[in-house]
Parts: sequence; C-alpha cells; structure tokens
Amino acid sequence: MSRERARRRAHRANAGGTSPVLPLLANPYAPIEILSADQVEAIHEASLRILEDLGMDIWSDEALDILAAAGAEVDRPGRHVRLDRGLVTEAIAKAPAEFTLHARNPARNVRMGGNFINFGLVGGPAHATDLDRGRRPGTYADACDLIRLAQALDVLHIIGGAPVAPIDLPVATRHLDTAYAVITLTDRVWHASALGRQRVEDAVAMLAIARGLDREAVTESPGLVAVVNANSPLRYDGAMLDGAIAVVRAGQGLIVTPFTLAGAMSPVTIAGALAQQNAEALAGIALAQIVRPGAPVVYGGFTSNVDMKSGAPAFGTPEYAKAVLAGGQLARRYRLPYRSSNVNACNVVDAQAAYESEMSLWATVMGHCNYVLHAAGWLEGGLTASFEKMVVDAEMLRMMAAFLKPLEVSEETLAFDAMREVGPGGHFFGAAHTLARYETAFYSPLLSDWRNFETWEEAGAQTATMRANGIWKAMLAAYQPPPIDPGIDEALKDYVARRKREGGIGEAA
Amino acid sequence: MSRERARRRAHRANAGGTSPVLPLLANPYAPIEILSADQVEAIHEASLRILEDLGMDIWSDEALDILAAAGAEVDRPGRHVRLDRGLVTEAIAKAPAEFTLHARNPARNVRMGGNFINFGLVGGPAHATDLDRGRRPGTYADACDLIRLAQALDVLHIIGGAPVAPIDLPVATRHLDTAYAVITLTDRVWHASALGRQRVEDAVAMLAIARGLDREAVTESPGLVAVVNANSPLRYDGAMLDGAIAVVRAGQGLIVTPFTLAGAMSPVTIAGALAQQNAEALAGIALAQIVRPGAPVVYGGFTSNVDMKSGAPAFGTPEYAKAVLAGGQLARRYRLPYRSSNVNACNVVDAQAAYESEMSLWATVMGHCNYVLHAAGWLEGGLTASFEKMVVDAEMLRMMAAFLKPLEVSEETLAFDAMREVGPGGHFFGAAHTLARYETAFYSPLLSDWRNFETWEEAGAQTATMRANGIWKAMLAAYQPPPIDPGIDEALKDYVARRKREGGIGEAA
Repeated sequence: MSRERARRRAHRANAGGTSPVLPLLANPYAPIEILSADQVEAIHEASLRILEDLGMDIWSDEALDILAAAGAEVDRPGRHVRLDRGLVTEAIAKAPAEFTLHARNPARNVRMGGNFINFGLVGGPAHATDLDRGRRPGTYADACDLIRLAQALDVLHIIGGAPVAPIDLPVATRHLDTAYAVITLTDRVWHASALGRQRVEDAVAMLAIARGLDREAVTESPGLVAVVNANSPLRYDGAMLDGAIAVVRAGQGLIVTPFTLAGAMSPVTIAGALAQQNAEALAGIALAQIVRPGAPVVYGGFTSNVDMKSGAPAFGTPEYAKAVLAGGQLARRYRLPYRSSNVNACNVVDAQAAYESEMSLWATVMGHCNYVLHAAGWLEGGLTASFEKMVVDAEMLRMMAAFLKPLEVSEETLAFDAMREVGPGGHFFGAAHTLARYETAFYSPLLSDWRNFETWEEAGAQTATMRANGIWKAMLAAYQPPPIDPGIDEALKDYVARRKREGGIGEAA
Repeated sequence: MSRERARRRAHRANAGGTSPVLPLLANPYAPIEILSADQVEAIHEASLRILEDLGMDIWSDEALDILAAAGAEVDRPGRHVRLDRGLVTEAIAKAPAEFTLHARNPARNVRMGGNFINFGLVGGPAHATDLDRGRRPGTYADACDLIRLAQALDVLHIIGGAPVAPIDLPVATRHLDTAYAVITLTDRVWHASALGRQRVEDAVAMLAIARGLDREAVTESPGLVAVVNANSPLRYDGAMLDGAIAVVRAGQGLIVTPFTLAGAMSPVTIAGALAQQNAEALAGIALAQIVRPGAPVVYGGFTSNVDMKSGAPAFGTPEYAKAVLAGGQLARRYRLPYRSSNVNACNVVDAQAAYESEMSLWATVMGHCNYVLHAAGWLEGGLTASFEKMVVDAEMLRMMAAFLKPLEVSEETLAFDAMREVGPGGHFFGAAHTLARYETAFYSPLLSDWRNFETWEEAGAQTATMRANGIWKAMLAAYQPPPIDPGIDEALKDYVARRKREGGIGEAA
C-alpha cells in the first residue's frame, strides 16, 4: 500500500471516530525546551570532555580494532578507549537525520526522525501479569498474546522482539521463536535482540524472508531496530557491541541507549546524568558511523533517578520528565532521531501507574521523541508486562494521538450560523451543524467510562483496570493474524527449524 | 512575611525534599501554542461578531442599566444586549495583566498573572466520597474536613468556598458557615459565592474582619475571588451578574468562566466552542471594567465536550486539552490572567481518574494557566468531592511543582569529578558528589510507592487509592489550624451569628 493510500486509510479509520491513530503520527507542536542553548552546549562540551579525558571501557575486540583504526587512543590490555572530540563529532555528523523503517505491510512503514512519533510495545520484562492469573514468570504463550494484543490495539507502530521473556523456551533458540511470532502475528516493524552477532544475523535473515528480499536489498531498506545499552557508567559490554556492529553492517536501525539512573549508574544531578548519557550515546553512535557511514541510528535517552531512601529505581518522576525533554534537545542538536520511553515504577495498574505513565508520555511527546519505546504494557519499572496496562496505555496513547491532530479554525468550524440558529439559552444537540459532525467530532474512548455514577454502579462499578481486563480478553478472542503468503510462512518455519537443529546461538547463550 | 522571606521559607521547605511547593509557583517553560497567530485572531474576530450581531441575554436589571449607559444596544423587554467591538475592546483593555490576592497570612499571598501558577481546591460538588463511607450527599463536616486537608496538603494556593455543598445547613446562611470555616481552618486566599449581591457582601465583610482592615482598605487589596459562570449559550443569569457586580464594586477578584460544553451548550467544533467561550468571557469582563475600570479579573475557560453517544459530559479529553491550550492563547492576547481546571469524568479514583486529570493538568500548566481551579478533589465531572482523590491530585500537583523547578546546569552539577571518581562500571551511591546531595536531589513522593513487588505485596498490596485513604486520615488526625487572633475569631463568630439572626440572604435563596 502506498503512503498516500495509507494516509487515506488512516483518514477513514479516524472518520469512524474509534481509532485516532495514523500510520504516520506527527507532532504539530513546538517541543518544550527545558535547556537554554548555552546549557545544551555546556552538556555537549562536558560529554566530549568525558570521552576525551575519562574515556570508556569497550569490552569488544572488534570494536577496539575499529576504533583504533579510526584514530582513537586505545588501551588494549585495559580494554579502554579515549575518543577525541574531532573523531566523535565528525563521525556522528554522518548519521541521517531521518530514515524509514520498512514493515512487511508497507502501510505500516514508519518514519524515524523529524516530528514523527512512533509508539512501541514493551520489551524485555521477566514477568507477565493480569488480573486473572496474577504475576508469574513470562512464557512464550504470554509473549505471543501480548504481541497479538499489540497488533489488535492498533496504536503501536513498532513491536519489541519479546514483550516478556519466554523463559519456558531454551535461551539459545528463543530469539528464533519470538522473531517468528512477531513476523507472523503482526505486520509491523519489529526489534531484534542485539545481544551477540548471531541473534542479529538470524533476525536479519528472517526479515529478508518475511519481506521476500535478498540480504543486500534488506541491507538497503531497514525493517528492524535493535537497542544497544551502555553498561553505565562508561562501559559497553562485548556481546552488546558485537551485536550492535552486526546491526549496523546489516543496515538495520540501531538505537543507542545508555541507562543512566541518577544517583546509581550516573551522577545524582540530572545535568551530570545527562552529560554521561550524552557521552555514552555519542560514543556508540560514533562507532556505528565509523563502521558504516550513514547508518540509521537513534539517540536513546533513559535518564531517571533512584529513590535515595532505598536505592530503588523510580520512573515517571519529575526528574525523568526533565531528562526526557533535555534529551530531546541534545538529540536535535545532533540532528538525530530520538528514543525515550513510557515508564512507571508501580506494582499494580492503578492511579500511580497512570500518573507516572502520563508524566513520561507528555514528556516524550513534548520532547519530540520519535520513538516512545515501552509505550504499552510496562509495569513495575520494566520487570513485568501487564495485560491490563496494555489497554490503559493504549487509551492514553490514543488520546495523545487525538491531541496531536491539529485544531481546525475555519468559517465552518467557528460555527457562527449554528450559534445564530440555537440562540441564547438553547442547546446544540439538534443543530444542523452538530448533526453533520457529531459522529466524528470527538475522540471516542477505548476504555474510559463516562456513564453517570448510578448507571456505572448498576453495571458493576468496575474500575478502569477491571474493564481493561475484559477488553484485552475480548480483543484476543477476536484477534485475526494479518495475512501472510503461505510460501513465506513456510520458509520462515524452515529457517527456524534449521537453526534450531544447528543449536541456535549455541553455548554462548 | 515579606515575599523575600516567603521565598526563603519555600526554599527551606524544598530543601527538606518533601514539599516541592513554593508559595509562588512560576512556570519557566514557554507555553504550548496550538493556534497560529492568525487562528487566534480568527477566534477573536468571530467572538466580536457574536457579541455585535447575535448579542447576549443579560438577565440583570442593574447590568442592563450599566451596559445601556456605556453605549450598548439594549433591548429591555427582551433583556438582550448587543455589544459593539469598540465598547468591548476598550473596556477589556482596562483590566490589569497581573494582580495580588492577599491572604490573612501574607506568606500565602498569590500573584495572578504572568507565569505564576496557583492551584485551587475543588469547589461546588453536591456529593462527598471516600473509601470508608462511600458516596453520600455533602455535609458541613465533610466540607470542613476537605478544607483542613487542603491546608495540610500544602500544595493548594486558593481554597474554594465550599469543596462540597453542606446540604445539612440552611441555604440562606450556609455561605456564612463555609466562609467562617475557610477563614479559620486555612490561612489562604479563598472563594466567595457570587450568587447574588448579599453573599458577596457577607464574604467581603468577613474578609475585612479576618484581615483586620476596614471595607475601604479591603477594596484596595483583594483577598478573595468569585467565579461568575455564563449560562451558555449567550446568557448571563440575574443573580450571577448581580453578584459579579458586587464583587467588582468591592474590589475583589472576578473570574469570568463560560461553561461551553461542545455539542451541548456550544458548537460541536472546538473552534466554535472557543469563539463562544471568548465572546461570553469578554462580555463579562467588559461589564466588570465598565463597573470599575482596572478591576482585577481573570479570563476563565471551561470548554470540554460531551460524549456524543450519550450526551454525558466528558472531561480530561484530548479536546479539553486543546481547548485549555487555546484558551491560554486567547487570555494572553488580552493580557489577562487565565483560569482553567483539573478535571475528569470518572466515577472512582482509578487509572482513568488519574490519566484524565493528567491530560487536564499538563494542558493547564503548559497553557500557562494562572489559576488551576478544582486542582484537588474533583471526581465524577464535578458532582463529587473525593477524599482519596485529594491525595492523588496533591501528588500530581507536587510532581508538577517539582517539574517546574529549573534544571541547574553548572560545573558542579555536570559532575565531571564524580565521574572520574567512580570510573567505568562503578556506582555513584558512595561518591562524595552523591553524599553531598542525595537528601534533596530528587522529588520525594507523598503517595507513590516505589518498593519492589515482593515488599509491596507483603505490606498488603495496596493500590494508590487505598494508600491515599490512610494518608488523608493521618493528615486529618494531625491537622492543626493556623493561628488566628482570638479577637478576630470572636468578631467573625459575632458577624456570623448576627447575620444568621437576620436570616442570611433570606427568602431569595
């Protein structure tokens, strides 16, 4: 489907009043700027000084070779690298400001950069939870159900590889199963695990099969992304970097995200945490651009703070919101797409989960984040994926999508004639102007209950979380997988079977 | 206490890490602008056309006299007025851009205008609710407890007259009881009811007693506000306008707030609803400025939408957020202080209540609202005041207050030496830089629970709403009224007793 047809389809979906989601969602508002231009420069300068004077531990031989060849000061026995500012700034300048990620359904392609916003499914939790079954270790069945929900909710542009870790599957081959699940249960752009080269190679091979392309064609048209995290402070682990290099060589999108929890893995001051975040992100992005100039990369921010009473990580805090906005300014300074997250530290889907998520979500949107990862389903600081939170988050995302639709001011919408028709003290329910527009005038909720108290009480007095439970079960019951060519499906199955016979990633797992 | 001392006190309070609230809370960020300059002008022009060509019903003889004398085209038998644009724009230009409201404790004075933000207690619901006693008609005891909580939570700058209607008290005199409660249980700026002249006169008399001033002095230093609502579309009721005129004559703050629910009391399009809101607000503000040029007034916005399936009002919607932002642009076009609200349409304190409130709250803050009314306690579209929602809202307001504290970027906060000290792979818990700052580095929550799942579960697995229940009860148990001069207290009691003997506002109630 062409982009134009996709737009028309989205317009028709909007016209129904139920789905405010566009395949391409763009932010019409100017970003909130929390830093002055001087402050942005001060953080930039501090991070270059960190890379020059303190340097980073780089625990990948291949990365050390690459950086040494590029002129970095490499201490091989110490696996430590100092990067001078010229090397860093020249390298990051080669990154594209914007790129397209290609889904197997072209109507689901996403643009990364500019003022586009893409929402992504939660990725990585060890536990799954819902009101019926409680909190338990994640399984492949849970992962598949969360992936199905992500497809059905129709507000998530990108699907994480595994919304919950399928711990019932062997570590050496579970990436094959989850890639197969994401490819066949959705038609979206998805995530590969960057933990080691082989997982990336498998993901890229399966991406090529899914899109009916050869390896070279897939390298030229990225269709997946992978996250590389710094092991903050100032360290990149070996498998992570090896995986990141493989992602870049394969032409796929690399998201470089330090995890700078202020007070623990970074300084207790937000400015210091941002300087460290920026240093670590620039180092990873520079490496990518040295490996393959012009490689599609995303500047990732994940600065939050700990609770200084207990050391527990906190998310969706005022400090988090500030760091998200500042991170956007840093990313824009380098003309790089920007990734952040919809987070909370709550143990249950309640008012706290919602207000912490909204603090995050508003900051990501108004910080002109291009990719909001963990946008739906994240609970408990990312330790748990929640089925009910999926629905609560989807409602918040749909509301945000509706909020981003520009307000139309025209002779018709100013409605002078309707006011004349109705007159003082009248009402607009029956006005011609209302009747022509009422079906599509307003956002129509997925979850919110606006019935009066008595009606709501008679119907069982359900909280939003209880209603969310009913909604996800109904959606799973009605779920239909997106169509896939049977030959492609067969080839994917063959690939997975062969690689399982070969032992997957083997002992290295 | 001087403003400077108040600032220092607030700084010390912040330094404790528990209260992020400043007596004067200011917004360091540029507002979100949803309308282009041309769109602002189009709405402005449309509203002037409404007032010129359609006019408004004005159901107050006194207001009709005043407007006729000022040159408006008055249809006396029809109680209808057309206002030409010259009259309107000249009158509103006389309003001050900023003014001070004086509390009986000068440390609690508030600035209305500029980039100051003030939060106000919920006002007006008919019902009270909490987890122990459920939903019931409001009483004076409930009103007093909510007022005590507002004082204790220390994040509300302004107290509504009655956070819940005390329906156990006679209508003719209950305004005297609530004014006495607000004056003695808090030390803040408060609301009078503008429903009829006599209620305003009583409030102003009690304000003068409370502050030890004569009537003239109180007229020159406003210490209360009152809201006048249009009976939208395009009508002002008699008692409301008579009360508004009394507020203005007494030199107190008048908040002019049309209630333009798109699709019901205003056009189904947000632009049309805004044009009507603007017309109604300008008419009320113009009347105030004709009565007393330079009178302190606030531009009120309350444009939301109905659920077009049921006709039920919806709050905290994407449309509401857009209208709040646009309303701020209109208020700033006229250099007027701006009032909006923290709203939701939820029947219970759950995730929906929180996400609808956050949609509202972010829009009020980023729309540079100067007065966020109903900032704490509002539930169920304003029909119910909730004790648990008071605490949930207070947490959201405190988080927002912390978010508004500027991010400090300096050599010290950039923390290069701390990163050198800790080095790659280390942690910052024990760093000197951390130890010097950890107590005050981050927002410290009132309600949010950041314990890990196991600890939280063992402690009873309480939701935020359940914890809020414990918090408000503990706060009420520990509540201490702010000191008041016994002579003033006696004089207030005498005034209330005398006015009760006189029958309060009498049969007119």
